[in-house]
Amino acid sequence: MTMDRVDAYIGSHSSDFEEQLKALIRIKSISAQPDHDPDTRRAANFIRDDLAAMGLATELIETKKHPIIYAEWPGAPGKPTILIYGHYDVQPPEPLEPWLSPPFEPTVRNGNLYARGATDDKGQMFTHVKAVEAWLKTYGRLPVNVKFLIEGEEEVGGASLAAYVPANKKKLACDYAVISDTSQFAPGQPAITYGLKGLAYFEVLVQGANRDLHSGTYGGAVANPLNALATILASLKGPDGKIRIAGFYDQVKPLEDWERAEFAKLAFSEAEFQADLHVPSLEGEAGYTTLERKWARPTCDLNGIFGGYAGPGPKTVLPCRAGAKLSFRLVPNQDPTTVARQFKEHVDQVCPPGVTYDVLIHHGAPAVLVKIDTPGVKAAVRAIEAGFGTRPVFMREGGSIPVVGLIKEHLGVDTLLLGWGQTDDNLHGPNEKFCLADFHRGIRSSAHLLEELAKEKA
Amino acid sequence: MTMDRVDAYIGSHSSDFEEQLKALIRIKSISAQPDHDPDTRRAANFIRDDLAAMGLATELIETKKHPIIYAEWPGAPGKPTILIYGHYDVQPPEPLEPWLSPPFEPTVRNGNLYARGATDDKGQMFTHVKAVEAWLKTYGRLPVNVKFLIEGEEEVGGASLAAYVPANKKKLACDYAVISDTSQFAPGQPAITYGLKGLAYFEVLVQGANRDLHSGTYGGAVANPLNALATILASLKGPDGKIRIAGFYDQVKPLEDWERAEFAKLAFSEAEFQADLHVPSLEGEAGYTTLERKWARPTCDLNGIFGGYAGPGPKTVLPCRAGAKLSFRLVPNQDPTTVARQFKEHVDQVCPPGVTYDVLIHHGAPAVLVKIDTPGVKAAVRAIEAGFGTRPVFMREGGSIPVVGLIKEHLGVDTLLLGWGQTDDNLHGPNEKFCLADFHRGIRSSAHLLEELAKEKA
Repeated sequence: MTMDRVDAYIGSHSSDFEEQLKALIRIKSISAQPDHDPDTRRAANFIRDDLAAMGLATELIETKKHPIIYAEWPGAPGKPTILIYGHYDVQPPEPLEPWLSPPFEPTVRNGNLYARGATDDKGQMFTHVKAVEAWLKTYGRLPVNVKFLIEGEEEVGGASLAAYVPANKKKLACDYAVISDTSQFAPGQPAITYGLKGLAYFEVLVQGANRDLHSGTYGGAVANPLNALATILASLKGPDGKIRIAGFYDQVKPLEDWERAEFAKLAFSEAEFQADLHVPSLEGEAGYTTLERKWARPTCDLNGIFGGYAGPGPKTVLPCRAGAKLSFRLVPNQDPTTVARQFKEHVDQVCPPGVTYDVLIHHGAPAVLVKIDTPGVKAAVRAIEAGFGTRPVFMREGGSIPVVGLIKEHLGVDTLLLGWGQTDDNLHGPNEKFCLADFHRGIRSSAHLLEELAKEKA
Repeated sequence: MTMDRVDAYIGSHSSDFEEQLKALIRIKSISAQPDHDPDTRRAANFIRDDLAAMGLATELIETKKHPIIYAEWPGAPGKPTILIYGHYDVQPPEPLEPWLSPPFEPTVRNGNLYARGATDDKGQMFTHVKAVEAWLKTYGRLPVNVKFLIEGEEEVGGASLAAYVPANKKKLACDYAVISDTSQFAPGQPAITYGLKGLAYFEVLVQGANRDLHSGTYGGAVANPLNALATILASLKGPDGKIRIAGFYDQVKPLEDWERAEFAKLAFSEAEFQADLHVPSLEGEAGYTTLERKWARPTCDLNGIFGGYAGPGPKTVLPCRAGAKLSFRLVPNQDPTTVARQFKEHVDQVCPPGVTYDVLIHHGAPAVLVKIDTPGVKAAVRAIEAGFGTRPVFMREGGSIPVVGLIKEHLGVDTLLLGWGQTDDNLHGPNEKFCLADFHRGIRSSAHLLEELAKEKA
């Protein structure tokens, strides 16, 4: 059997693959922090060099921020072409204090690799790189044509890739796109994700007086930008969990009956979910289950806030400015540009007098929903069954992968979202992890996917 | 004339006094920041050594935090005893960026000394130290008995002094208390402050999940502590500027008709006040003028906030905790303990479900209102006229000096609040300043005050 030898290569190189992943993770490619720009570039070079060493034609594409890696193996004429996307940049590791091991020193505990980027997306992206290596080292060829497109700005809005894809449609033309940047449904239950939320990320800055003031001498006589900010932020959601921005729900595609029925069948325990998070109760939009809220209903979350004195002890300052970062997760068919307009209009209406404000738009992406009865999805089901020993379920995700919309719009193909992570991997938080067994199963699934897609009509 | 020689000493030592003040200011006695504990102690030693060198019996009283300086000159039997209070600790200098010169490197621009602590309270407190020096160096005696009580915890709640005063009533017994830690009404218009606001300072901490979460994967399914905090904070005040805590206004002593009439007569321009602050409008409690709001109505200001990611760029985190520092300025006859209870009850009522919260009480002090037709006030009027060449007006202040209440309660005397600062001195903010001419006029006024009080019946 063709795959036996590939599987054998993967099995005999598991330690090598782990060590290589650790080396990649140690590179602090924090795309949001300009101090780490040289590290971010080092991560790009690391992956480019690896792909070049196994025989792919590679390119490092310069952008205004972080380079894009493009690599291709076009040696299977007449066979389908697979575009594999990933990203090598990571979220900032802060806050540092809760990390049990340093965020950029990958550490194995209980079979999990703990580090920033372990699952999002270095570990998951790397499974495809290693699957391609296994094929090439075993047979000197791939069963399909492969193009890698790996960016370094996924965590900061992906502006460079958003410009690159429409300008390079021919180069990137493909029959299937594959991304591993999501999670399985649960340990032991792999999944194919057919829906993703979109994102609209904003920063609100409120300015009061031209300088910080003594809260005794000036308090009560001049608007406090922090109080004003709290008023703005508190107006965004009602006690029923509904977002109170005029028109916000107008474009929302409701959940289909079959989806609600399928979600309800999944082995998900709200009690366990609550216990894992140690929260006194689960809260969200009235009228929906936790899975429906997580996967298919729009949300509004504050992501950060600042203003005044946040050091130890009290300080009686009336600050001159305050700000908050916040994001909406969007569902099909919400348009991020419309949401941005609605949000700005809302802030304009609710901002108290006596201060001025500014709304910055950090980034936006529409939600994604793909068909599940396609040859590509069927091939993915078989590949995952081969790699994990279990048939995947179909799920949606609350996260956003803007590139999926980009690929659909400009390359005309749906993306196979094959998540190897777990929902408790703490991506974006402290102690991010990736199960090493899933890492290896992901490599195997990816290798089988190439073979399975070769059987399908392009 | 007795005072001519004292005035001459003050005049001929003005540069020495300025250099000594600068040396004191350079010591980073930030009482809120434990890192600076050694500096805070150095500031205490500096003042104690200066008082000892001029012949006072001095003591450095150890406390749980920062030492209290006590010094006395009891050599005028039969004459009144004056207790002079001050504090040598300062507010944290943050935010550092807006400072035009380093906060702890005193710098003279346009006749003002810029530095943290320049006016609050090192500069003002030091006027009395130098006035006593002028007397002692000139005549070898003071016209009254003097006791200095100088603490190092005024900016962090003054817990040690609050314990020390009631335990040392005999030692601290006095006929008059004097504090310079307020401001004049305006440049060229000195004032005696007959009312101060009280303070109730709290920190609200809100806890959501047991770890930071990805806002896509978990958003909408679990309460966000930052959103919950915004809801709590926004509930504190209505659009009419009224504080919406049940019972909060029950004990508030209304402004007297004569006060409203006197305030209205003062040369205060709301337009200039607004222009100086660069705010689009002046906001505050409906039905009151700016001076009434500043001086005689209770207020609620957020002083600081924290939670989530506040660094550059976006981060899609759903933070596990958030917090805010906030304070109420109280008026006669509000009780800080009652306000603390009302505030806690309010938070308990408005805190959304799905999170837990904690309320920390940083410190509290009642407001102060003193009689103005007393021998001490009359002596102060004459002394200020001598030092400033202008008769002082009577005003109230929005700031809080908890020790005034302490002195009234345990030592039974009202305090003469003789402010040498200006209202735009930016105390607690960046670019704090003290007018050097006022520094010298303050020293002169203080020297005359000792003489004037000697004429009054103890």
